Amino acid sequence: MARKQTLPTRAENFSERYNQLVAQSGLAQNSDVRGCVVIKPYGFSLWENIKDRLDQMFKVTGHSNAYFPLLIPKSYLSKEADHVEGFAKECAVVTHYRLRTAGDGSGVEVDPEAKLEEELIIRPTSETIIWRTYKDRIQSHRDLPILVNQWANVMRREMKTRMFLRTSEFLRQEGHTAHATRKEAEDEARQMLDVYQDLMENFLAISGIPGHKSPAERFAGAEDTLTIEAMMQDGKALQSCTSHFLGQNFAKAFDVTYTTKDNTKDYVWATSWGMSTRIVGGLIMSHSDDKGLVLPPAIAPVHIAIVPIAKKDGDLEAIHAALDEQLRELTMNIKSEWLGSLDIPLVIQRDEDDSKSFGRRMTDRELKGAPSTIAVGMRDIESGQVQITIRDQEEKQTVDIAQLGNEVVTQLEQMQSRLLETTKTRREANTVSVDTRDEFIAALDEGKFVMAHWDGTAETEEAIQEASKATIRCIPLDQKSEAGTCIHTGKPSTGRVVFARSY
Amino acid sequence: MARKQTLPTRAENFSERYNQLVAQSGLAQNSDVRGCVVIKPYGFSLWENIKDRLDQMFKVTGHSNAYFPLLIPKSYLSKEADHVEGFAKECAVVTHYRLRTAGDGSGVEVDPEAKLEEELIIRPTSETIIWRTYKDRIQSHRDLPILVNQWANVMRREMKTRMFLRTSEFLRQEGHTAHATRKEAEDEARQMLDVYQDLMENFLAISGIPGHKSPAERFAGAEDTLTIEAMMQDGKALQSCTSHFLGQNFAKAFDVTYTTKDNTKDYVWATSWGMSTRIVGGLIMSHSDDKGLVLPPAIAPVHIAIVPIAKKDGDLEAIHAALDEQLRELTMNIKSEWLGSLDIPLVIQRDEDDSKSFGRRMTDRELKGAPSTIAVGMRDIESGQVQITIRDQEEKQTVDIAQLGNEVVTQLEQMQSRLLETTKTRREANTVSVDTRDEFIAALDEGKFVMAHWDGTAETEEAIQEASKATIRCIPLDQKSEAGTCIHTGKPSTGRVVFARSY
Repeated sequence: MARKQTLPTRAENFSERYNQLVAQSGLAQNSDVRGCVVIKPYGFSLWENIKDRLDQMFKVTGHSNAYFPLLIPKSYLSKEADHVEGFAKECAVVTHYRLRTAGDGSGVEVDPEAKLEEELIIRPTSETIIWRTYKDRIQSHRDLPILVNQWANVMRREMKTRMFLRTSEFLRQEGHTAHATRKEAEDEARQMLDVYQDLMENFLAISGIPGHKSPAERFAGAEDTLTIEAMMQDGKALQSCTSHFLGQNFAKAFDVTYTTKDNTKDYVWATSWGMSTRIVGGLIMSHSDDKGLVLPPAIAPVHIAIVPIAKKDGDLEAIHAALDEQLRELTMNIKSEWLGSLDIPLVIQRDEDDSKSFGRRMTDRELKGAPSTIAVGMRDIESGQVQITIRDQEEKQTVDIAQLGNEVVTQLEQMQSRLLETTKTRREANTVSVDTRDEFIAALDEGKFVMAHWDGTAETEEAIQEASKATIRCIPLDQKSEAGTCIHTGKPSTGRVVFARSY
Repeated sequence: MARKQTLPTRAENFSERYNQLVAQSGLAQNSDVRGCVVIKPYGFSLWENIKDRLDQMFKVTGHSNAYFPLLIPKSYLSKEADHVEGFAKECAVVTHYRLRTAGDGSGVEVDPEAKLEEELIIRPTSETIIWRTYKDRIQSHRDLPILVNQWANVMRREMKTRMFLRTSEFLRQEGHTAHATRKEAEDEARQMLDVYQDLMENFLAISGIPGHKSPAERFAGAEDTLTIEAMMQDGKALQSCTSHFLGQNFAKAFDVTYTTKDNTKDYVWATSWGMSTRIVGGLIMSHSDDKGLVLPPAIAPVHIAIVPIAKKDGDLEAIHAALDEQLRELTMNIKSEWLGSLDIPLVIQRDEDDSKSFGRRMTDRELKGAPSTIAVGMRDIESGQVQITIRDQEEKQTVDIAQLGNEVVTQLEQMQSRLLETTKTRREANTVSVDTRDEFIAALDEGKFVMAHWDGTAETEEAIQEASKATIRCIPLDQKSEAGTCIHTGKPSTGRVVFARSY
């Protein structure tokens, strides 16, 4: 491998540092296919851990997984007017189903004889194809609710991409539920937002602001879009997930009705909700420091990195033997609203690559973000004490080997709480309420979330965005009723909304 | 839901019965997109269970998961000559990246301005794009081996499709490994075949014949393809999985070399191996009977179906309360070569849908293949005994409620062994050795696997296929050395190979 470069610090260039960190820490790499990345094993293991937790939560809340076709007939997209408007401009279109040998023998070319009658779109999202199949499944109120989730790749053509945060192809889950009543669907959309918040706070250690999107920022086809907006370390917002109340829009588009208990007919109510590999980008931008990744223990693929210093034959074995007894079968405990009290087994990694210096191995561990690192030589074993580094702390700590197991567990549990507290404190400290346009721009330039009054119209929202590059991130669920005047038009407003620049 | 039709029996029409069974038991449904199916929650849960077990085995054998782009540049396919030959005819081609509103306002159409410079292929398999990225990752012997697996959807355009068994889009895993030596890669390909055999025998209860594909049937780009050929109930063969030794073909195509310990350069050795949702079809065709699905307990989503007969308020609660104590936290034990001794938690489902008659609920349980069903009313609770049906047995059994837990576990463990034994016995009883052409055709017509001599040439293989519609399924790993003459040409042969008609 080429020698690694030093990362820029966060202060020097937060954005460029992110790109380099993702590549250098082995999470992902760009591919030759525009907008498509390779998620490498280390990066994928983060996604797997997120996926496993979310999947457990979906099952606890009564959902099952299913799988729907990757390709969607072009005509499906047109059935819901807002939906096609929202997605037609960014989709990958399959027009042919065969290649043939090129006439000049230079390779292969599209076979013009193999043109599809109707073009197929690689799913940018699956509402249309799923509601087409729900039509076949739903006749009576007895067929409801349908509580289904899909883990899948989707494709939305992007011109400016960035690993995890914005790529043409990305991995995600998309829940699609069908209900007999408006209330039940609204409750479902809200419940799934709570599930996401549980994941973010208790596992990813990211504190965000749950709220409603403004009408202009809603999902194409939704009546309400819920979101959790997290603050990255540079003050920009990241939309971490969305949960949509779709009303009866897709049921009407695909003519999905059911017979009620009273033997009348009604259209079915819908939700959809999703979280994607984007959240891995959010995880990195929330916690990493100038030395590299900082991974919350509850989601980290490796918890304890052991970097042994072996000077002679037999040292390695003796070192590991001395630690093994203490480190065997450790678990840290996490409390989750949906999963209860969870014991997460701690994973140990030994870094014995003797082609690298000890110092190099230690900085690599920092780069890769192992929550705890134990640097240990024979002298430590003999003295009965080792030095342990907790990734988010500057100082090394000296620990009796006889106490090592308990100590590591305690430290990791504390680190987990500390990281959540840090994102919460950062967000709260960097959220300001302003009442004038000048203060508004100044606060944004300082990387703040800005609580400001808005007159509630899409025109004003757009004008503010043009003037400031900030968007309404959300109307917080806990918005306080407060009379005020719109920052831009001076018209009356009844409460503040969250503005920020965003990823 | 429309009233369900009676299934044809296996004897009447095995093939049509399969299609109806998949649909009626709620495993999958066809979609409007040619060759693409919807895998419904019940079918997907089978795939999830298979996936979880395989994924565990892959990790035990040192593999990590990663994710590579869905879209492959057309030019990549051409880099390995056999590979493009094998896949160009059946691929979905993305040519444009945008739709626009149609001039007549009727919907959307492909935007001719948005034509890609180079067309992209939806991956039929990922060797090319993965070896392109391995080129960036491999310089030295220290970078080897790379042991990576991907869970993904792939697309191979099929004209004649059948749910699970043959669809244009399907889900699968594909392992892609890179090694420093031929021996290591060959051992890897063989090890992964052993992993598949473990899954098939110990979890899916399917006994197959492991062997090498003939050169003509090899994967496009492989030097050796290993397979396990299972016999379906109609005597046809199903290729359950493949594991390929790729030699240095892809390393040469993508110029992937490494520096050896002796400081010389060599091309890297490769394997790839895969199992797909096709195996769900194999599971159904191996075990189902005329009443419906029969699912091996080790892989079934539900183990115990309780069908209560409630006549008055409070009956349901009383029935479940009486059984709960016995059925709480039961596990059945499975022995696996790779996963060791595994305790699988038993899942209970209560069928309380009072819109259906008791008889209807019982036949539904049969259709859906729950390994055990307990039909129970208040009279049974009072008498202290219930009737339990084990899905692959005709007779109901009367069991003391006080013994119910132990009894269910024992019965399910026995059922699991019995199903494997059944597929093994069936295959062995229906495999014959023949030495003449007439016997050969007659045996195939009777639905047999035929052990016959073959002269080892692709021409003969093709001629036999044209004459008989049978192909060489494999050259068994345990092939006995035996002098003989080719069934078709009379030329000399040194051992028998397995011929069969196949799915």
